[in-house]
Order: sequence, then C-alpha cells, then structure tokens
Amino acid sequence: MAFGEFDLIDTYFTQRSKQRPDVVIGVGDDGAVVSLPERSELVIVTDTMVADVHFDSDTPARALGHKIVAVNLSDLAAMGAEPAWISLAVTLPEVDHEWLTDFAAGLREICDYYGCQLIGGDTTQGPLSLTVTAHGVVPAGSAIKRAGARPGDWIYLSGPLGDAGLALAARQQKVKLTNEHYKRVTDRLYFPSPRVALGQSLRGIASSAIDISDGLAADLGHIIKASGVGARVTLEAVPLSLPLTESVSQERALELALVSGDDYELCFTVPEARRGVFDTLIAHSPTKPICIGRITSETGKLKLELEGEPWELPEAGNGFQHFSQRK
Amino acid sequence: MAFGEFDLIDTYFTQRSKQRPDVVIGVGDDGAVVSLPERSELVIVTDTMVADVHFDSDTPARALGHKIVAVNLSDLAAMGAEPAWISLAVTLPEVDHEWLTDFAAGLREICDYYGCQLIGGDTTQGPLSLTVTAHGVVPAGSAIKRAGARPGDWIYLSGPLGDAGLALAARQQKVKLTNEHYKRVTDRLYFPSPRVALGQSLRGIASSAIDISDGLAADLGHIIKASGVGARVTLEAVPLSLPLTESVSQERALELALVSGDDYELCFTVPEARRGVFDTLIAHSPTKPICIGRITSETGKLKLELEGEPWELPEAGNGFQHFSQRK
Repeated sequence: MAFGEFDLIDTYFTQRSKQRPDVVIGVGDDGAVVSLPERSELVIVTDTMVADVHFDSDTPARALGHKIVAVNLSDLAAMGAEPAWISLAVTLPEVDHEWLTDFAAGLREICDYYGCQLIGGDTTQGPLSLTVTAHGVVPAGSAIKRAGARPGDWIYLSGPLGDAGLALAARQQKVKLTNEHYKRVTDRLYFPSPRVALGQSLRGIASSAIDISDGLAADLGHIIKASGVGARVTLEAVPLSLPLTESVSQERALELALVSGDDYELCFTVPEARRGVFDTLIAHSPTKPICIGRITSETGKLKLELEGEPWELPEAGNGFQHFSQRK
Repeated sequence: MAFGEFDLIDTYFTQRSKQRPDVVIGVGDDGAVVSLPERSELVIVTDTMVADVHFDSDTPARALGHKIVAVNLSDLAAMGAEPAWISLAVTLPEVDHEWLTDFAAGLREICDYYGCQLIGGDTTQGPLSLTVTAHGVVPAGSAIKRAGARPGDWIYLSGPLGDAGLALAARQQKVKLTNEHYKRVTDRLYFPSPRVALGQSLRGIASSAIDISDGLAADLGHIIKASGVGARVTLEAVPLSLPLTESVSQERALELALVSGDDYELCFTVPEARRGVFDTLIAHSPTKPICIGRITSETGKLKLELEGEPWELPEAGNGFQHFSQRK
C-alpha cells in the first residue's frame, strides 16, 4: 500500500456506495468538486477520534467507521444542516485488510443511510487516528446557532442521556450490567444515531441548538455562554434509559447523564412563540423531545434542581466525573 | 486545556487574522457556515502530516503551521481553485504554549497571504498529527482535472524540482551542502510555496494538472493513468536549482527531481491550440513554467529521455530512491 494516496479506502468504500448527483468530481483527483443548490449556505464540521484517547484499541472497526461519521453528522444536525459530503483522513499503523473492510463497511452504511457521499481524503501511516470533515447544506440564513437562546425559551433534549457513559463504566468494570443492558448501552456507545432529521426540522423553530458530546452540563453551558443567558434545568425531567435507571442509583445516573457525554442527542431551545409549531412538528415525529427546563436571564448561571432542591455537579475526581476525561 | 474544543487554536489564531466577508459563522459553534458565489463550484482537499512520518520531530512549529496549509493549497492550485476556508484537526501530545504560538503564527501567515480563513476544526490529545481540509472555489465547470491530457499536449513544470529531497538528504547527513545552499533548500522543504495564482490562471488553458508531492515520475504517472495517455519527458529540460546542480551529480539530481517529492510545483498539460494564450499569460507572470515534454498516445507509458537516450528510474533501494518513503 502506498500511504498518502486514497486508493485503498476508495477500493473498500466506493464500489457499493450511493452516488450523489451534485458530486462533479469524487475520489481520485487532487480534490473533489461539488455543487451547492442556489440560495443555500455550506456548513462545515470537523471531528477527530484518536486511539486510546477517544476509543479503546479493541473497539470494532465497523463501529469506528460508523462513529467517526456519526459524531460529525451530529454536529451538522445541531446546525440544522442536511448532510452532503464527507472527507476522511485516516492514519493507520499498518495495512490490515480485515480491519479496513469492516471500517469501510461501517462508514459506508451510515453515509448511505443519511445520503451523504465520501468524496476524498488522505491515508497516512502512523498511530491510529480518524478525522472526518463533513459538509452539509442549509437554506441561506437558516443555520441554527448556539448563540440564539433568549430568556423564557424552553430547553429540550432529543432523547435519553448517560448510556454511552454507562457502557464505558461497564467496560472498565466499574459497574455490572445484565447482558441485555450491556448490549443495549454498548450499541449506543459504538453506533450512536445522529439526530439528522430532527436537526433539519428545527430550522426556523429552535432559537439555539448543540449536540451532547461532552455531557449536558458542559454543552448546555456552551449555549448559555454563547447566548449570554442562564438556564434552569429540572433534573427529574431529564430522560434516562431503562439500563441506566435499573443499573445505578439516581444520583449516579444523573451524574452520567450530565457529565459523561458521547450521547449525541440534541439539546435545543424553543421560544414560547414557536412552541405550537414545535408541538405540531413532534406530534408527527418518531423522536419525542423532552422539555427539561427554561432559559433564564441570569447570565452564565446553570441552575440544576432535583425535586425543587438545588443539585450540585460532583467535584472532578468524584463519582463518574472521570468519564469526562475521554476528550 | 480541554482537548476536544477549539478555543486554544482559536485564541492563538483568530485575534490577528483577516476575516472573509463570506464567512457567516466562523470558529466557536458546532460548525462553520460559509456562502459560495453563484454559478460556482466548491473544491475540497484534505492532507495529513504525521510526526516522524511526514516530518522530523525537530521541525520548527512555524514551518509545520505553514506547510500543513501549503500542501493543501497546492492541491487546490492543481484544481485551479481559489482558496477560501480551511478546517484544522490538530492532535497534540501536550499543551506547549510556545509551540502553539509558533504553529499558529505559521498557519496564520500563509492563510492571510492567500486570503483564506480558518473556520474551525478540532483539537485532540494524542501523537502529534495535523490534518487540514481546505476549501476553494471555481466557476462552475472550470476545475482542472487530472484526466484531461490528450496526445500532443505539451507538458509543463512550474519550477525546479528536487530541493526538498536535497534538504532531507542533507539533514540525514547523506550529502554535504554549503551553508547557503542548505539554508535555501531547507526553506523549500519547510516553507513550500503553493502555486495558487498560477493554478487559477490555468483554468481554460491547461487540459490537466497535478501538484508534485510524490515526485515527477509518480505524479505525471497519475495524469497519464487518469487520462489514458502516455508521456515523453526530455530530462535535460527539467528545471533543477543551483543548490541541486552544484551539490550532487546530474544523475542524482535527476533522481531527486523525479522521485523525492515534497516540491509542490505544478505539472500540467497545455493543448497546442491553447499555447498562444498560455505564452501570453506567462509573459506577464513572475512564474515561468518550463516545457519538459509531450503527451503521447502510448497508454500508460512514461518515457524518460536524457540527451536522446532512454533513462531508467533507479530501482527501489538504490540512489536517493529511499526519500520516496516519506509518505
């Protein structure tokens, strides 16, 4: 294999992949050429996953192929963008054809599912590392920012948090799960589902949005910081999965939900004036976002309440806090 | 430093950087949002550089910041694209503020010079590795492909080859250079100049183009393979720098020019019918491309001739061939 060329991934990837009509030149030239619809804007996101930092070395290659795309599509979803094209930079210690076959299959499956096409990249030799730059499209002026939340807006979550953190805790022997629970949460850790359709449907409705990659506390923190507002969250409203509530105490479940990250649900805000449109939208959606609180005017203040009482995030080093180091 | 966020690079980078009016949202949200001119197409390129594979660990940080952008802009130039925005994924073993300051300065200088803006990326912890995805713009339908060369087209090089390979050989103590020569070729290795203006001016003139990253033999090989043609190159016409011709034999100089790569000159083909326009163009250009041969109809055949005699590339393992392993 000549590292530096992209033939290898191309061979494993393009033969069975769906082609988009807006790709003028795909893999195989110095660059790819694509065309955008008129009156649209381009959204560009980048995420890297490094072996032994973002994933254990025994993570299945197919899961890695899925996840490096999923985490990027999740960022696109948080902007309200429709996924279109991805570039892949993959650094491999050696050529392992079985690994590459599985990795490319995971990558191809999620790309085909969301209608986005691999258009190029780079293959290099070195310590295992994956970087995807994903490109999406929005009608001009309609991208959802972090900075749009206003006091009184309702805060929503697209789905339950903490499963990915629980899977990691179980893999590290810090908690014991039933086989069924283990399988379910490992699936959430390895094959996260970016909320692509929901993100797009929130254009014109949500005043701000972010995807939960670092835990609710940190990511909602980004929204209130960018928007110059505060937030009050009713913790008993935060959706937690059955594996989570059945396996650990409520306190630990909340810690995982708030700080462990890697869940790739969307957290977004909806102004009171758009709530009717939003309720109509989700009435017809398979995803049922849950209202967990409200934006306040107390700039920079994130208030967490459980059963009406203030609730403090555990100190670094306590509880499950250390999971947040996986960044 | 919270690895995973981009604040760090942003801090070092954006404060003094030029802002493009087409950047709707820059660094700091889940993604960047940019707008393209009407009737244009987007060109996307990606290149990775890994420590101890693509560069020695003692390479100055400012050179790395320059080069990871330069190699990508070189790919854009080979497509005839105008550079617009770059995304940066940087993986660092640790937070070294001096290194980051220098790296960001190198990155910022070349971006500002070519009018392209850093719009986002990812910062992660791990073995040192740099990936840039660069985005350029071309009028719709005008990107220059590898596949357009036709028999009879003239083959041009934008400038001298072999200097980067000579610098590497000197650094590896395989050749001795005068201080002046060493400085000059090390500058070519560390701070390559992508042929951005030339690439754009070749739209509508060149039938094919590629940038020389893997050596002339390999890269011209990509053109003839993609175009389904052959090529005949007159080696005495291949431009070699003074440091190269004064430091090694003609044979070794040609080997370096043909196989060492990392030069980032453009190799392109011009049809006879466009030669008058091309000559007029370069008459007013500071870059003076040199004609080194002609495209033939012998599919897949790259014929190298020196003083009218066939010339064979050295076998792998001989001469300077090993420099080509830096991929």
